[in-house]
Amino acid sequence: MTQATPLRAAVVGSTGYIGMQCTALLAAHPDVELTRVLGHRSAGKRYCDVVPGSPVGLIIEDSLDPGSADVVMAALPHTVAASLAPGWLAGGATVIDCSADFRLHDAAAYRRWYGVEHPSPDLLDEAVYAMVELQRDRLACANLISVPGCYPTATLLACVPPLRAGLIEPDIVVDAKSGVSGAGREAKVANLFSEVNESVHAYGVAGHRHKSEMLEQLRDAADGDVGFTFVPHLIPMTRGILATAYLRPRPGVTEADLHELYAAFCDTSPFLDHVHTPPATKSVTGTNRAAIHSGWQDGMAVVTVAIDNLGKGGGGQAVHAMNVRFGFDETAGLESRVLWP
Amino acid sequence: MTQATPLRAAVVGSTGYIGMQCTALLAAHPDVELTRVLGHRSAGKRYCDVVPGSPVGLIIEDSLDPGSADVVMAALPHTVAASLAPGWLAGGATVIDCSADFRLHDAAAYRRWYGVEHPSPDLLDEAVYAMVELQRDRLACANLISVPGCYPTATLLACVPPLRAGLIEPDIVVDAKSGVSGAGREAKVANLFSEVNESVHAYGVAGHRHKSEMLEQLRDAADGDVGFTFVPHLIPMTRGILATAYLRPRPGVTEADLHELYAAFCDTSPFLDHVHTPPATKSVTGTNRAAIHSGWQDGMAVVTVAIDNLGKGGGGQAVHAMNVRFGFDETAGLESRVLWP
Amino acid sequence: MTQATPLRAAVVGSTGYIGMQCTALLAAHPDVELTRVLGHRSAGKRYCDVVPGSPVGLIIEDSLDPGSADVVMAALPHTVAASLAPGWLAGGATVIDCSADFRLHDAAAYRRWYGVEHPSPDLLDEAVYAMVELQRDRLACANLISVPGCYPTATLLACVPPLRAGLIEPDIVVDAKSGVSGAGREAKVANLFSEVNESVHAYGVAGHRHKSEMLEQLRDAADGDVGFTFVPHLIPMTRGILATAYLRPRPGVTEADLHELYAAFCDTSPFLDHVHTPPATKSVTGTNRAAIHSGWQDGMAVVTVAIDNLGKGGGGQAVHAMNVRFGFDETAGLESRVLWP
Amino acid sequence: MTQATPLRAAVVGSTGYIGMQCTALLAAHPDVELTRVLGHRSAGKRYCDVVPGSPVGLIIEDSLDPGSADVVMAALPHTVAASLAPGWLAGGATVIDCSADFRLHDAAAYRRWYGVEHPSPDLLDEAVYAMVELQRDRLACANLISVPGCYPTATLLACVPPLRAGLIEPDIVVDAKSGVSGAGREAKVANLFSEVNESVHAYGVAGHRHKSEMLEQLRDAADGDVGFTFVPHLIPMTRGILATAYLRPRPGVTEADLHELYAAFCDTSPFLDHVHTPPATKSVTGTNRAAIHSGWQDGMAVVTVAIDNLGKGGGGQAVHAMNVRFGFDETAGLESRVLWP
Repeated sequence: MTQATPLRAAVVGSTGYIGMQCTALLAAHPDVELTRVLGHRSAGKRYCDVVPGSPVGLIIEDSLDPGSADVVMAALPHTVAASLAPGWLAGGATVIDCSADFRLHDAAAYRRWYGVEHPSPDLLDEAVYAMVELQRDRLACANLISVPGCYPTATLLACVPPLRAGLIEPDIVVDAKSGVSGAGREAKVANLFSEVNESVHAYGVAGHRHKSEMLEQLRDAADGDVGFTFVPHLIPMTRGILATAYLRPRPGVTEADLHELYAAFCDTSPFLDHVHTPPATKSVTGTNRAAIHSGWQDGMAVVTVAIDNLGKGGGGQAVHAMNVRFGFDETAGLESRVLWP
Repeated sequence: MTQATPLRAAVVGSTGYIGMQCTALLAAHPDVELTRVLGHRSAGKRYCDVVPGSPVGLIIEDSLDPGSADVVMAALPHTVAASLAPGWLAGGATVIDCSADFRLHDAAAYRRWYGVEHPSPDLLDEAVYAMVELQRDRLACANLISVPGCYPTATLLACVPPLRAGLIEPDIVVDAKSGVSGAGREAKVANLFSEVNESVHAYGVAGHRHKSEMLEQLRDAADGDVGFTFVPHLIPMTRGILATAYLRPRPGVTEADLHELYAAFCDTSPFLDHVHTPPATKSVTGTNRAAIHSGWQDGMAVVTVAIDNLGKGGGGQAVHAMNVRFGFDETAGLESRVLWP
Repeated sequence: MTQATPLRAAVVGSTGYIGMQCTALLAAHPDVELTRVLGHRSAGKRYCDVVPGSPVGLIIEDSLDPGSADVVMAALPHTVAASLAPGWLAGGATVIDCSADFRLHDAAAYRRWYGVEHPSPDLLDEAVYAMVELQRDRLACANLISVPGCYPTATLLACVPPLRAGLIEPDIVVDAKSGVSGAGREAKVANLFSEVNESVHAYGVAGHRHKSEMLEQLRDAADGDVGFTFVPHLIPMTRGILATAYLRPRPGVTEADLHELYAAFCDTSPFLDHVHTPPATKSVTGTNRAAIHSGWQDGMAVVTVAIDNLGKGGGGQAVHAMNVRFGFDETAGLESRVLWP
Repeated sequence: MTQATPLRAAVVGSTGYIGMQCTALLAAHPDVELTRVLGHRSAGKRYCDVVPGSPVGLIIEDSLDPGSADVVMAALPHTVAASLAPGWLAGGATVIDCSADFRLHDAAAYRRWYGVEHPSPDLLDEAVYAMVELQRDRLACANLISVPGCYPTATLLACVPPLRAGLIEPDIVVDAKSGVSGAGREAKVANLFSEVNESVHAYGVAGHRHKSEMLEQLRDAADGDVGFTFVPHLIPMTRGILATAYLRPRPGVTEADLHELYAAFCDTSPFLDHVHTPPATKSVTGTNRAAIHSGWQDGMAVVTVAIDNLGKGGGGQAVHAMNVRFGFDETAGLESRVLWP
């Protein structure tokens, strides 16, 4: 579905890290007019006085009302978007939610992992999961779009293609490494520079919230149950996620088979690069790209995926989904360059 | 002078840090066609296989011949560009040199600081120093353009306006802080991660090479001699320079006078921001912008300038100068966004 | 005054960064028995379960009562120690306070900078400022010891010797660079890893709290007024302070005169090193040492001092003062090694 | 076997990162006299002028002759120690080698991974592998001691105990994360600050040199073949290794069984800590300790081990082995404190 441009867009929760990416990308998007930036903490100030380096001059409003926007991009703590989405949808807006509120299709799983009843369980079936390269077809007519978490984005890019193709056993280990910005902009001792610099540690070993979201998608891809171990680690860097997936090839499947599979998969998207050496997260910093390497060690497939957790794993993917939804060029507003180092 | 586009550009020394910025910016520039990327170390490989994340597919040539390029952008060790520039100019190209070879106008100073005779001393007078905001008029018809070093860029933006306006004494202290990429991509123990991380130190205390370049410009601005102390420091970050200038106001000059001066100066360029709080280098990472803050402490003016050492302090300024030289929009190819954090 | 050992010591505010250094040093001190660790946030837990890597098994008590300790080491927010010190002193303890409460001798200055009335102004004259190398004599019989801030420690080591000796003009610029741990362990957005990594910025340009403390000491050293500009900067590292002092030699004073002065000064203490190249903060990480370099640039003296802000600039200096006060070997409990890198 | 102290020790290769740890630890060791520091690059200089912060005043000798030392600690590139060890042993010294030269017992594997013939294959059987907690008994009478690599140290602490106890399947995935100092002090572009900061990447995916060393030990522990996938990653920090081991429990084995196993194992050594939350590498920085956490996720055991790669994974382990060999207290010279942060 195409749309007369410019599309009018509002960002709710515009001063958190994901909201900041959405705001920056929408402000520079050729087909979009950024109409409102909403936020609580810095309300009343000009956006560019709060977010260093931003060219956006709008005043931050202490409100959750996006006005007459065509698209509402929400980056809020869980349960908030779920409560407000029915109203936004009723007002005619397309809702693109970056929180966890519409990622699970099972309200019971939501309750288990987030500790509260889902505020709008009836919307769970309507929401389209915006792992764009894997759900492109369903996005074109979606009114409620749920942007995957950063860990799931990297993990699913590694695991879904071979699961769908039946090339690997449904028995997966993913060891993921994330920059600190993945923890958000909340003031917590655990994320102070002095606590995390010069250190690395695992967390969520007994089970991470995002695991449920990934399991839903992996089971769907495998069309059956999947053994899945997922351990995230905190890395002393600001941005970036690297997922290292350990995948057991089915009997007879070769390194070349998997190499071919990922090469073909990457050909389907302007944002996927099939690379020849294990990618560094820095090679995709600030972009909506994913760099995917398919390796092999003594019969085990080792696939590494690097993304920017706030780009492809957040605001970039939200804008990418918007582009597909409204018939824009997929890369519109997302063609940033990487300047190494 | 305007020019039929696309302008054909070659980068000589394209795989060092500054060369990488020039290449990335030229490749994405709307008015430029990147025709050749030259370099020694990785010659024969595709550029994008050498520079992570680059979309440039040209083969790196082991040559110093830019071919029939309209503009030659050079990022080479000192003396190399000085030796080759006469030939490039004779071939009709405009030369934009990012090395120190044409920054000084005094061949004796070159010999003193670089330890060798200048290979083309007759060109020193022809070269235009491309501190764009301070020499815009002379750039329009320059054929040999010399891009300032990263330290001078930040320092001169702080010091030249009040010197020219006669608002400060010619008695200046600049304490500068640079990210490690300023040291280039050469393999040296001193720049290994393990040596510089979690540490800060001063260097060049007895006198830094760039001081001579700055002194020439400062004397020119003051129209007389200038007392100038400059101490650089190495900061455990990849990109960015912060110059903290301690300026003694002339009798009667107030904080407001200086504030007004810098505000007016910043109004003259799309790349200068007069900011309300001392700027963080991160607020300009990856851009051609400079953030300037004019502060005051008990009668001493304290001016801080933040730039990206490889952007405004390197490749960005080179492209900016090219834009002015060829009559392009000043911001063409330089409108990158900052995505905090 | 010597003392039957072990000395019984309690740490009040033991889980902040400075309190953690005090606790670690006292726990390993050959002449000390650590009797109590007090703290609010983690009260009730074993200390080693709260502070990673600590061998201290005491339970953290939610109290401000040090019990029958011979020495109370306090690392608390300002005003708290000032309120409690009279009681601790009355109980017979020697008080070593790491806060700002007893650093100024002028109650009006305290009110101006900290915004509240000093709770115990009558104690201000009794308190001995524990810049040990500069006040060693007065410490031997002090009952109330005030440990300097980290910025003042580095700054005063650079500036006091030449001021006392009359070798420099009373017109000083100090540009200081601090690691993030100097901001303490409080949860603040500004100190999140993602906010400060890959960036540097100045702060307190218009005047920093510690300036008043330094001015008192500098005036005392100069025996007269002193022009003093002090600008601190935040560096993306956990520990360390580097102070770069720009000192104008009096007429006739040479580089060699200053070199000799600092060499002689460093000979007076086991913790001061007069080094041949500008010191890296990493060379003193985790120690109570200060590395001092005296440089010279075209007639300006440039002195750089590197310390660990939590060591020599905090807990190390507190323990050093305690050693002097109780007649222990000055280096007791402070002989840690540096393991580069 | 006990020994009249002080033991005379020489360090060969004393200015690389591992050699620097050995030197620092031996210089402060109560039972050792450091007699010679040998090294090529900085020969002729005083050690403390080359290694920042070191108190060692010996002149670095450009030689490979340890003189009449009782113990030779070698930290050299591979093949060098293997060539010289026969001579050192013949001279009566005990040799503690930190290189890879004596870690493998299979000369063919050495040729395959290091590309050269082993210079002294007859010594391979004599060498005792110094993973101290796992081979303590054999060290007491060893004359040629081979210190494990940093990756193997962390990996084997996680995997050997349950393999020996028969609690897990011989089918192991280890995902390891190392600080940059693990790559040594050689000048390489790949280890420049600007290349590795703000980034993480996998390497050695197809097979890492250290894998062969680990496989030998794992097969020994399992008394049979072992499926083993090992992928190392480079982390933007100086020191530290975290190994995340994914272990499949044998049928009937519970989380509690493994917990008990690791608790008992940690009780056997003063340097092993069984911790309650996944350890941060920073909690062991600068020490000879290993922090081990035994976790469980939906039937998969997830064991994380944190060490300092240059401490427990290098010089610390070398000194620990020396202590056992010569009957010193195991913790002699190794009781450093951690000062968080």
